[in-house]
Amino acid sequence: MTRPCIISVAITGSLPQKANNPAVPITPAEQIESTHEAFEAGATLVHLHVRNEDGSTSSDPARFAEVQEGIRKHCPGMIIQFSTGGRSGQGDERGGMLHLKPDMASLATGSVNFGSIVYANSPALIDDLAERMLKYDIKPEIEAFDLSMVFNTAKLVERGLIKAPVHLQFVTSIPNAIPANREVLEFMIKQYEKVCPGGTWTAAGIGRHQLELNKWALELGGHVRT
Amino acid sequence: MTRPCIISVAITGSLPQKANNPAVPITPAEQIESTHEAFEAGATLVHLHVRNEDGSTSSDPARFAEVQEGIRKHCPGMIIQFSTGGRSGQGDERGGMLHLKPDMASLATGSVNFGSIVYANSPALIDDLAERMLKYDIKPEIEAFDLSMVFNTAKLVERGLIKAPVHLQFVTSIPNAIPANREVLEFMIKQYEKVCPGGTWTAAGIGRHQLELNKWALELGGHVRT
Ligand SMILES: [Zn+2]
Ligand SMILES: [Zn+2]
Ligand SMILES: [Zn+2]
Ligand SMILES: [Zn+2]
Repeated sequence: MTRPCIISVAITGSLPQKANNPAVPITPAEQIESTHEAFEAGATLVHLHVRNEDGSTSSDPARFAEVQEGIRKHCPGMIIQFSTGGRSGQGDERGGMLHLKPDMASLATGSVNFGSIVYANSPALIDDLAERMLKYDIKPEIEAFDLSMVFNTAKLVERGLIKAPVHLQFVTSIPNAIPANREVLEFMIKQYEKVCPGGTWTAAGIGRHQLELNKWALELGGHVRT
Repeated sequence: MTRPCIISVAITGSLPQKANNPAVPITPAEQIESTHEAFEAGATLVHLHVRNEDGSTSSDPARFAEVQEGIRKHCPGMIIQFSTGGRSGQGDERGGMLHLKPDMASLATGSVNFGSIVYANSPALIDDLAERMLKYDIKPEIEAFDLSMVFNTAKLVERGLIKAPVHLQFVTSIPNAIPANREVLEFMIKQYEKVCPGGTWTAAGIGRHQLELNKWALELGGHVRT
């Protein structure tokens, strides 16, 4: 490992709510403080979902603005990545906060099943989000939940909608999407390096799988996420 | 190649209409005759979509019944496979003709983008179609448009919703789904053989890709589709 590693933190996904886990940060103040703790512990990147007062996921630009402002103040230099994940709305709602110019934003480049739902990212939505990221000079983190999304990413680069070098996260172990399987990860990395030369990557897993994925990522030359 | 090969024919996909190609068979009589020609030329399996009078895709059980009856009469012994593909409706509409007990029916085990649309196959719909196929003793042909669908298939077998050995088709070269790429096909086959031991498979490609896929399938031990 001679490449620098980014230690990143997702302080809250789109699903857990206070009812499941009272420690999940919901209010902007809680989210800022929780990010600050991770920053003090060494995290250099935060992946951000925001919530409504009732704990449901939101893509309210005002919420994103408040949390971003707090993190910039409390955690100087930390990379802020907004989630454009699908649980917080469709179409325009998904990218309506990108004018806030976070450093990065997530971008899923295809559709797949997630547990019991269809995680729908239509090609038109993907183009729209990628165009906004270009316009506001936001670095996308591609979220690849299945193999086709790696190839779709390369096509977005060819079409000028994503700037090379690409940064991509292999998201494993969500039921009905790609499993946490070393052979599969290695194959996806190989294809990714072929079609997106010079790209960087991380690998994510759900729950107990994250530690395993971090280990594999270190061995295979990726970045690390906590 | 010591294994027997099935030569199959898809007389019409879900998309082409008379306006694009006047040779596309639309009426039951046309579909039966077109299948008969393929049968005489050596095809042993027909993959069937049916159409409304206006040429749009349909999952009308009466239409399927009429075409099936004609094929059974004209093409004795030919394997009839109904499409449960998504362009012809959602939910109950997708499997409402399975009580007609075709020999086989197609079953996509996940969601993916197809060209400009989201080809949504929710886990609930997949379970529903698989249960109907079990109930009516129909052999599913799994349609794998992406890698996760191979793993999802194994989980359906584990849950008793699909009987082993599995028959699966790798469907390549639909824009935004898995490309026609030999290395990808070989990897998918390897994973498939690992998680669905004893399974058989075919490989499909769109347009000019089909010949290439047939060649690869012959070399790699699959069946052939025309
Ligand atoms: Zn603080
Ligand atoms: Zn997220
Ligand atoms: Zn005839
Ligand atoms: Zn079909």
